[in-house]
Amino acid sequence: MEPGAEAAMATAIRVLAMDAVEAANSGHPGAPMGMADVAAVLFNRFITVDPADDRWPDRDRFVMSAGHGSMLVYAINHMLGYDDMPMAQLRRFRQLGARTAGHPEYGHAKGIEVTTGPLGQGIATAVGMALAERILNARFGDDLVDHHTYVICGDGCLMEGISHEAIDLAGHQQLGRLIVLWDDNRITIDGGTDLSTSTDQMARFAASGWHVQAVDGHDRQAVAVAIAAARDDARPSMIACRTVIGFGAPNKQGSHDVHGAPLGAAEIAAARQHLGWPHPPFDLPQDITGAWRAIAARGAQARAAWQDRLAASPHKAAFAAAMAAPDAGALRRAIGDHSARMIAERPKLATRKASELALEVVNATLPNTIGGSADLTGSNNTRTKGMTAVTASDRAGRYVHYGIREHAMAAAMNGMALHGGLLPYGGTFLAFSDYSRPAIRLGALMGVPVVHVMTHDSIGLGEDGPTHQPVEQVAALRAMPNLLVLRPADAVETAEAWEIALTQTATPSVLCLSRQSLPLLRDSADANLTRQGAYLLRDPGLRDVTLIATGSEVEIALAAADLLAGQGVRAAVVSAPCFELFAARPMAERDALLGTAPRIGVEALVRQGWDGLFLRPGDGFVGMAGFGASAPAADLYRHFGITAECVADLATQIIRGK
Amino acid sequence: MEPGAEAAMATAIRVLAMDAVEAANSGHPGAPMGMADVAAVLFNRFITVDPADDRWPDRDRFVMSAGHGSMLVYAINHMLGYDDMPMAQLRRFRQLGARTAGHPEYGHAKGIEVTTGPLGQGIATAVGMALAERILNARFGDDLVDHHTYVICGDGCLMEGISHEAIDLAGHQQLGRLIVLWDDNRITIDGGTDLSTSTDQMARFAASGWHVQAVDGHDRQAVAVAIAAARDDARPSMIACRTVIGFGAPNKQGSHDVHGAPLGAAEIAAARQHLGWPHPPFDLPQDITGAWRAIAARGAQARAAWQDRLAASPHKAAFAAAMAAPDAGALRRAIGDHSARMIAERPKLATRKASELALEVVNATLPNTIGGSADLTGSNNTRTKGMTAVTASDRAGRYVHYGIREHAMAAAMNGMALHGGLLPYGGTFLAFSDYSRPAIRLGALMGVPVVHVMTHDSIGLGEDGPTHQPVEQVAALRAMPNLLVLRPADAVETAEAWEIALTQTATPSVLCLSRQSLPLLRDSADANLTRQGAYLLRDPGLRDVTLIATGSEVEIALAAADLLAGQGVRAAVVSAPCFELFAARPMAERDALLGTAPRIGVEALVRQGWDGLFLRPGDGFVGMAGFGASAPAADLYRHFGITAECVADLATQIIRGK
Repeated sequence: MEPGAEAAMATAIRVLAMDAVEAANSGHPGAPMGMADVAAVLFNRFITVDPADDRWPDRDRFVMSAGHGSMLVYAINHMLGYDDMPMAQLRRFRQLGARTAGHPEYGHAKGIEVTTGPLGQGIATAVGMALAERILNARFGDDLVDHHTYVICGDGCLMEGISHEAIDLAGHQQLGRLIVLWDDNRITIDGGTDLSTSTDQMARFAASGWHVQAVDGHDRQAVAVAIAAARDDARPSMIACRTVIGFGAPNKQGSHDVHGAPLGAAEIAAARQHLGWPHPPFDLPQDITGAWRAIAARGAQARAAWQDRLAASPHKAAFAAAMAAPDAGALRRAIGDHSARMIAERPKLATRKASELALEVVNATLPNTIGGSADLTGSNNTRTKGMTAVTASDRAGRYVHYGIREHAMAAAMNGMALHGGLLPYGGTFLAFSDYSRPAIRLGALMGVPVVHVMTHDSIGLGEDGPTHQPVEQVAALRAMPNLLVLRPADAVETAEAWEIALTQTATPSVLCLSRQSLPLLRDSADANLTRQGAYLLRDPGLRDVTLIATGSEVEIALAAADLLAGQGVRAAVVSAPCFELFAARPMAERDALLGTAPRIGVEALVRQGWDGLFLRPGDGFVGMAGFGASAPAADLYRHFGITAECVADLATQIIRGK
Repeated sequence: MEPGAEAAMATAIRVLAMDAVEAANSGHPGAPMGMADVAAVLFNRFITVDPADDRWPDRDRFVMSAGHGSMLVYAINHMLGYDDMPMAQLRRFRQLGARTAGHPEYGHAKGIEVTTGPLGQGIATAVGMALAERILNARFGDDLVDHHTYVICGDGCLMEGISHEAIDLAGHQQLGRLIVLWDDNRITIDGGTDLSTSTDQMARFAASGWHVQAVDGHDRQAVAVAIAAARDDARPSMIACRTVIGFGAPNKQGSHDVHGAPLGAAEIAAARQHLGWPHPPFDLPQDITGAWRAIAARGAQARAAWQDRLAASPHKAAFAAAMAAPDAGALRRAIGDHSARMIAERPKLATRKASELALEVVNATLPNTIGGSADLTGSNNTRTKGMTAVTASDRAGRYVHYGIREHAMAAAMNGMALHGGLLPYGGTFLAFSDYSRPAIRLGALMGVPVVHVMTHDSIGLGEDGPTHQPVEQVAALRAMPNLLVLRPADAVETAEAWEIALTQTATPSVLCLSRQSLPLLRDSADANLTRQGAYLLRDPGLRDVTLIATGSEVEIALAAADLLAGQGVRAAVVSAPCFELFAARPMAERDALLGTAPRIGVEALVRQGWDGLFLRPGDGFVGMAGFGASAPAADLYRHFGITAECVADLATQIIRGK
């Protein structure tokens, strides 16, 4: 039996979607109209959210992975009564400054759990959310953490490679609270799905350990029965909802013409007739709004009950701490003590190993960090002592074996951070940041403070050769807005980089770490100098040249300064672990640091990104101009001319030529 | 029955692999030792190659997708008798200048069909090879094109997302000549595969329409039977070869310790004992070499027979033309005529539409182009008149519906180009170059001249918003070595860009094309000015400022020059469609073009990459400093201050401040 006015609730989604797209003369009516019945059932009978507190931790998460169907989200959130989604916003769909962006954007409006649009990202992010839910459930119990993650995805999401990584990971972790509703409309932009795919999606999900069902996506009772069965099953669930794209537009539905273009006035009139909807655009009858508001009322009751449980819970303080920002003071003190020990001991360490030592301190200080690696644990040094794995049978651990899935790892980390309660970091080789780049970007766009641990950050990787040696990845990451790229030079800078990354509130970070051992360079850790972006590591007073280096090449710059000193040339050495933090400083401070003498940049990577910020016409650069090669690291540094001798020679040439 | 000395042939692979890794003190013995039996059977009984002509078009293709097992390839190629792979090369495994790089690198040695190492790339590239084989078979018949593509892949390849895209595409296209041998050793770097995956790979491949079998990978007769069955089946085939990683190392085999580290002297001695191999390192008994050389002899016979068939074939001339470089003269003339028409007609066109018009000419001139799109055909404008789709039942077409699979599309294009006989191009949105980036990079590393058509190349995309608006992708692509990034400003530059891209012999190209309409700017197409990288589009004689712009912003720079002219300021306008081509010109030429006046760069993207090449301290830039937004394009250009007025204002400020 269908409760309430569910048919009309679905029709309201359809009409708002087609009208808003028409008003914008831009957008995608097909998916919202096709999935309106499924969404109405899902919200009306299952989803627990409270628009009065969109951050309530135990709410269900709804992810519109098929983000082009954003009007489905906006229509629902308007009708549920989110106070920042009045009808005026729907009228201004896709206009400058409206919350109703072309694709749902996290942070633009309440009730948008994740930014979607790049296909497959939603489903992979949702896996992280569902994993976070189970990890926190293991810590805080059913009273405080007991919700579902629902995803609507389309054919595109399931064709993208990241979906495989996500599905495999979710199946392995047996994320039973994850329910994916596939909009099985057999239409893509180019035409029928039979143009490009023959995969039996049901069989595919089943092969990865999912519970699978198929229903008529316009049979609301059948959809409800399927969702109920999915909730009852211990496995993650996929429900193939056979739908007609653009359902309700009588002459266009079922065709790819309705996917991403306005229906036009005539078809909209026909659809109104067909759907029995006499109301003008952006005008909802009160009974329908009332039906949607009843969902919100149910959610408000659930939240009140949850708050009572929280008030009575022995976990109350711990839960609050988990949901709050990390304790920056405690972290600063712990990192400070650790750095002081490093300075006393002066170990020669790869920064990936220094990162592990810093993580020992971090993980002891911040109980919410959740580590992991894309199957390079021993190389990324991401697992500290006593960290046990999160498995399907035991969620008490703090380490995720993400498998050889860099892309899903990055997306799942976004999802865990978006969920709240966890501080995710995960490792792979820097060269493979290319694999995870779309999810890194989405994290930067959303402002999600996750930490990407990227080791083997140059030709210093050695024998594995150019496929594994980043040369352009750091430049490519520096090009991305709202991302901190940190390339520390020693154990102190590495610890400082961790402090910076873990105290970001709206910015993800990438830590670029060496495979090869590096000496300790710093004499003091009284201040976090990495936070300055670039700072004077060796100051000869008056200077003839300024050598600016990052990471593993700072050692080379210092050795070059020694060589130059032997020739009577005074070289200052600037360590520049983070270009973004440096660029954020006032120009006068930057000019003062860099000085007026000739400058040479030293980084075993491509030059792009150095000019303008550090280098001027006539300044020099010692680094890579192309791909690397396979050989022992020391041979490669010599082969590519990234040595103290080469730096010193170039300095002498430039000074003489001046 | 096992032919010849197959057991010993396999042992030779194992011993060479463990000895070379030991000599290098670096590398991966596990996979070559584990898959030695499978490889020995595959080569001994099935593969047809002729080391005397490694480019013979009808050879079987062998792809070691698990590229870390490179010693398997080098050992086999040595024993087959490739003249550039003497034992001295194996002794120098992973050393500077050796052909035996850490991972197999295309172009470094004969018999390496594709560079592998980044996991999943090999299998996706192989799909392109297998697709090319069928397309060419449809054109030239069984006499000339009739070979198989064999892939060895590991668990990592099958966990990576790209594998899903590749498997789905291959299943849909029913690439029956593609045979994947999965090294099912249940070990990854972190430990057992049960740490991170539960997927039933057999079921997964079957769900995508593959023929699947499972065998004991050390039962050579069973392997042979399975390969024969795979060849007989019309579907692509996956054979799960259950193996013991590091097979033959008695104390370490079966463990992740043997995956990526030398065995050590003691274990190597034990393995020699265990395998019954009394010979010293890098010393092969003649009978074993002889057995491998028999494979080469069989291949030489096959090649001779093929050459006889070619000589007698009615397709002889057409086949030779297909395998040769494209007719650059004909292309230049056709593009020149087309550009002259454009100049006469002066159409206002989006460069994506201009690209379609250019492609009409290109596809009529070069019969070997093969187009496609990742399900954005109507947006990328990649399909010209009369281009029919390549389908499982009809390979006569010239257009591939790659599906929503940007990554596999890029890898498959690499594979088609590597195969030879086809000139692939394929489209998606520029923002989603992030999805295909690892394959773009591999193409750049290999030097494969494919063309990535990337439309909707800025905030000019409009309402779809920041998820779909590239701001940093062009900088990220420009950072990549050996890649031409072309961002044409009008229909003439677009045609010139196509000419440049299609006449590259060892460099892939990315065409960045606008969604929005742009006026024709050029007055002459007598010379391909795009080939200069940057050139003077408007020359005021003496100049007060130089405005440098690319793509859709050249129009804005010209309008700014008009505004400035009204104020008595003389502005030169430089169109800079390709930074890489400009950077390759002598410094004196560049300086002469750019002049000494203040400069302003105009590009609706981030600034990274402009400084050093075009801009100096004090010069200005009008572009993006962060992510875009969802709104109509014209509103966004105004919102972000990328207008003629802003450019003119900045010019005036800089000139005054000077």
